[in-house]
Amino acid sequence: MFFIDCLQYSAWSETIFRQMNAGGVVAVHATIAYHESFRETVANFSAWNERFQRHSDLILPGRNAADVETARQSGRTAIFLGFQNPSPIEDDIALVEICHQLGARFMQLSYNNQSLLATGCYEAEDPGITRMGREVIAEMNRVGLVVDMSHSAERSTLEAIEISGRPITITHANPKAWHPALRNKSDDVLRALAESGGMLGFSLYPHHLKDGPACTLTAFCEMIARTAELMGPARIGFGSDLCQDQPDSIVEWMRNGRWTRNRDYGEGSAANPGFPPQPSWFRDNRDWPAIADGLGAVGFSPSEVAGICGGNWLDFYDAAFGPAGAA
Amino acid sequence: MFFIDCLQYSAWSETIFRQMNAGGVVAVHATIAYHESFRETVANFSAWNERFQRHSDLILPGRNAADVETARQSGRTAIFLGFQNPSPIEDDIALVEICHQLGARFMQLSYNNQSLLATGCYEAEDPGITRMGREVIAEMNRVGLVVDMSHSAERSTLEAIEISGRPITITHANPKAWHPALRNKSDDVLRALAESGGMLGFSLYPHHLKDGPACTLTAFCEMIARTAELMGPARIGFGSDLCQDQPDSIVEWMRNGRWTRNRDYGEGSAANPGFPPQPSWFRDNRDWPAIADGLGAVGFSPSEVAGICGGNWLDFYDAAFGPAGAA
Repeated sequence: MFFIDCLQYSAWSETIFRQMNAGGVVAVHATIAYHESFRETVANFSAWNERFQRHSDLILPGRNAADVETARQSGRTAIFLGFQNPSPIEDDIALVEICHQLGARFMQLSYNNQSLLATGCYEAEDPGITRMGREVIAEMNRVGLVVDMSHSAERSTLEAIEISGRPITITHANPKAWHPALRNKSDDVLRALAESGGMLGFSLYPHHLKDGPACTLTAFCEMIARTAELMGPARIGFGSDLCQDQPDSIVEWMRNGRWTRNRDYGEGSAANPGFPPQPSWFRDNRDWPAIADGLGAVGFSPSEVAGICGGNWLDFYDAAFGPAGAA
Repeated sequence: MFFIDCLQYSAWSETIFRQMNAGGVVAVHATIAYHESFRETVANFSAWNERFQRHSDLILPGRNAADVETARQSGRTAIFLGFQNPSPIEDDIALVEICHQLGARFMQLSYNNQSLLATGCYEAEDPGITRMGREVIAEMNRVGLVVDMSHSAERSTLEAIEISGRPITITHANPKAWHPALRNKSDDVLRALAESGGMLGFSLYPHHLKDGPACTLTAFCEMIARTAELMGPARIGFGSDLCQDQPDSIVEWMRNGRWTRNRDYGEGSAANPGFPPQPSWFRDNRDWPAIADGLGAVGFSPSEVAGICGGNWLDFYDAAFGPAGAA
């Protein structure tokens, strides 16, 4: 039994890497850009190069599925890097390949707002994928940089699924039918995603959970069971959105970047501007085994549990990160 | 009698500055960014700083309407700087004020494609001004950086007119009713622009002219007369889009930037990819007096001719470039 978490953005530390190890987490997709420019993102790649060197007993750079197997066999965690916004490629399609060469494996086409490529879920209107967006999706397909539409709006997401020649992802979100957050996804989107061979990662960020921090493990697992009926048990996994040990200044950066002189509270509010508390049953990476038990308790078979907890993402990684046609 | 041309992007030289002087051109709005990043735009500001020093007998930096008067009295040309895309502010609203401090006075909210702020006229869909766009318009209004929607799509343009607290511009375009180029503007847009106190600059770029390079001076002036009926004679001027002495690589940069690995031909075509030839009656800045004569020939009064040729832009500049409320 192993776990893959397809979205975390924690204040990385040896403590956290040891918790990953204790929890059986063999791979994590770690965000390195929310609004960062290319140059700022390069600094974040560098910071990971340093962590990989310093903590080589605990983590290793994740570039393809084989690295996950290496991590598993050596008792470490493969860290895959990704962007929550296309800001790192700025206006330059040539930076898609450069970022892949540096180690990026996921890129969201938009983050809450309109980007050069697609629309974010907080815009009033969603015109779908832009001219540049179509070109960039083709380039991402070519090099093996996976499209992620977690923070994108409905039409843009449906168009990305249709336009992309390779399966795409929603690394961290839940069904809107369960909890109607702007960030959660409609059944139409989830169905189209599954039919195209894409993957959904269930989020454990409290604003994406029914009843927020008070959501129970059972309610969460029952939601997964209902989603499995819609998408099939092989097209789902986890993307916890865990932001462990981060100060509230980080959630302010996520929401406001450099785009406004006012203050945007995103899924929070002026009265509740910071990170919400985590549910009691998911504090850190050591809590994954209990979530696996929860999946068993709502009726998933052991092989389905293994798939949802990591095997499904591993199969996806195996096909997604190389050049087009090479898989 | 003096002339103001509210859009040129020539391969700047002493020859061109002398032609401006010979033609009675006291002010030119010169583009310094099509797809340039902030840093690249700073280099273009620097290049103008150097030109202002080297050719101080012919040109001077244009920052406000008084500089036009200085230019007129000293027989020089005031050069106002502007952007055809918001690329210089990247994703950072604080760069609006920085760019104004460096001398920028106009900024288009989009150039053909979708930007972070608004939609360009080549996109299939136009959702209007984005979340960041609303914030940036307010900031431009505050510091006195003028909104220009020349390359923007219809709905975005109408919304910019409505949202902006200060009059906006379409520095270089013609009425779509005269020549149905994607870049030309509907009567709805022109009417709303005039009613809000904005300005239209008539373009002399052949792709914006009926019959292209074969367009006659009379046909051009008759179009201006019809537009004056729609907008009034005080809300119109010139923005020639003159790209004198530029190689075809420049029009390729304008069209393709860094957003595609394919080749976009914009208003041209694979068979006709370069700059089109200019109409015979507008080769360079020495041809303005004959255009003034053409306006007289289609029935404009001398004071109307003076307004269209320069006075209307001067009045607009007088109100537009200072901080909000200071005019």
